[in-house]
Amino acid sequence: MRRPQIGIMGSSEANEIQRSVAERAGRCVAQVGAALVTGGRDGVMQAAAKGCAEAGGIVIAVTPFTPMEQVNEYTHYVIPTGLGWARNVITAISGDIILVVGGAAGTLSEIAYAWMYDRPIVALSESGGWAKKLAGERIDHRREDCIVDCDDVNALEPILRKLLAERPIKTIPPVGRDAP
Amino acid sequence: MRRPQIGIMGSSEANEIQRSVAERAGRCVAQVGAALVTGGRDGVMQAAAKGCAEAGGIVIAVTPFTPMEQVNEYTHYVIPTGLGWARNVITAISGDIILVVGGAAGTLSEIAYAWMYDRPIVALSESGGWAKKLAGERIDHRREDCIVDCDDVNALEPILRKLLAERPIKTIPPVGRDAP
Amino acid sequence: MRRPQIGIMGSSEANEIQRSVAERAGRCVAQVGAALVTGGRDGVMQAAAKGCAEAGGIVIAVTPFTPMEQVNEYTHYVIPTGLGWARNVITAISGDIILVVGGAAGTLSEIAYAWMYDRPIVALSESGGWAKKLAGERIDHRREDCIVDCDDVNALEPILRKLLAERPIKTIPPVGRDAP
Amino acid sequence: MRRPQIGIMGSSEANEIQRSVAERAGRCVAQVGAALVTGGRDGVMQAAAKGCAEAGGIVIAVTPFTPMEQVNEYTHYVIPTGLGWARNVITAISGDIILVVGGAAGTLSEIAYAWMYDRPIVALSESGGWAKKLAGERIDHRREDCIVDCDDVNALEPILRKLLAERPIKTIPPVGRDAP
Repeated sequence: MRRPQIGIMGSSEANEIQRSVAERAGRCVAQVGAALVTGGRDGVMQAAAKGCAEAGGIVIAVTPFTPMEQVNEYTHYVIPTGLGWARNVITAISGDIILVVGGAAGTLSEIAYAWMYDRPIVALSESGGWAKKLAGERIDHRREDCIVDCDDVNALEPILRKLLAERPIKTIPPVGRDAP
Repeated sequence: MRRPQIGIMGSSEANEIQRSVAERAGRCVAQVGAALVTGGRDGVMQAAAKGCAEAGGIVIAVTPFTPMEQVNEYTHYVIPTGLGWARNVITAISGDIILVVGGAAGTLSEIAYAWMYDRPIVALSESGGWAKKLAGERIDHRREDCIVDCDDVNALEPILRKLLAERPIKTIPPVGRDAP
Repeated sequence: MRRPQIGIMGSSEANEIQRSVAERAGRCVAQVGAALVTGGRDGVMQAAAKGCAEAGGIVIAVTPFTPMEQVNEYTHYVIPTGLGWARNVITAISGDIILVVGGAAGTLSEIAYAWMYDRPIVALSESGGWAKKLAGERIDHRREDCIVDCDDVNALEPILRKLLAERPIKTIPPVGRDAP
Repeated sequence: MRRPQIGIMGSSEANEIQRSVAERAGRCVAQVGAALVTGGRDGVMQAAAKGCAEAGGIVIAVTPFTPMEQVNEYTHYVIPTGLGWARNVITAISGDIILVVGGAAGTLSEIAYAWMYDRPIVALSESGGWAKKLAGERIDHRREDCIVDCDDVNALEPILRKLLAERPIKTIPPVGRDAP
């Protein structure tokens, strides 16, 4: 019953290339039939949300704020956290796949968390920032795979389809004994 | 563009009355056109998700776990947090309205947070637990209103419609200077 | 090597009685040889820190803020969290014993968490608020014990000595496999 | 009244060089009169705690776990968080200065957070890992300074003394209106 989700990481301050890459990546997420999860703010998050929503996809935002209202205008559902930048640990793991566009220190923290929690990561390296620096790299030795380098957003769709196909969407319902 | 959301709080261990109330509350959330946000586990969360999903509504779960898969089978979208019970602060504020069914200590923490962060709270008091104990009460003096006492889940729909009508759904997009 | 710690929960807005009870409770914590953990703000937190520090005890504050500096003047060590009110889950469990003075919704969330995570709780009920409402009560059925009702802060010392004696301070060093 | 604190970041799995560097760094923290903050686990955290405690310093641990007991044996005070790896945002900012020894993905997330929250960072680069990769670098453009490269732990003491002297320890007590 669970539906595929793809997260996108990137800064609230983005240049034109980054916004363009993010918007096209968001559209691609809708085209492969996944919902998009973002951090809900401006810059990369807003551009990706715009691309996804305008292509008919669902957008969910996990924000650092507490009000329901404080979220970009392309978002359908909002999860406010009130955690400040600590919300990055959540955005980093709220996808079956995680995309990275550009990126400053906040995005770097998200890449680290996505790696620790074993999410496949795709870096849209033409956007620069930490996406470019870490594309094709491994963060440490706990994983065998690398951060996938997608250096052209036009090549993103088959990459997403392949990664989704490799990880069938399922649920393992928690029961009482799984309590944290 | 944001769509209405209603959260439901309640225990992973629920008796038959609580499950029944939760399922009917979930159905009611779908009927008023809102998405349902739950904690993703069993008990009240699962029953409410079942009610909402079977009535055609969207269900989003904010879980204490880190895997995407660890969520009940009626959930469409999952936000794993890895925060253990600290995720309660998030579920407590992820709705334009918050419902309470039954409830032990975890639910009590969520009621406290929903109160602090100014969400309207409706207690389905026939379900017992902290929902019953705090129905009609105020948690402290910061708010003028009370926790709404709905002692019959059949009377929930007009309450939800009224509360939603009083709080038009809007967005106030964050910009750089709103950074946490 | 670990030293005993006692946490104190209570509001940043406190009346004279609450400040007086908190200050004397803080002094008592120092007298039983424990460090005091507070939320680092004013009101109950400041008064308790004053009492403890002036009696020669160590005070540690876990704040909702991010700067090191944003903490009351009686604090020796500060753990900034940047989590807003979500830091309550941490203050609630950062003691071998948890004291409650007065208390509004924030304190209620902390009582709930201290209960969930199995910390002994002592309510200084003469201070009113949720301390008074829940003194002698159980939050739910997961525990056999009750919140201890201490209705006179002058009677606190033997209660603390007894609870500490029942729970010898020890460490069970985590190893790799305990990773979260 | 606040006392200087220095945090140390590094993995729970550490090689001999990393343990040695960490232990000597911990001793140095005690020698400059600061308390040491660690993540409370084994590896770099344990070695640094040992060095500090054996030199007479105070050690505070911020753990990802919930029990008071689950912490290494050189720790005096423990702040359990129950947040899993999300506790990294807290360890990363719980010092007037942050040291980095070796480091895998968890440490990388901490470097990113220490950078975002404007803590001076010193990388003990002889220990390898992310400490070596990022020594002398800037994470992004929000700061003018670099991560300080200390390639010999014997040279650490004057660096710490200089950084502490530049940042006089003070408190700016929060009042009600600063509520998060």
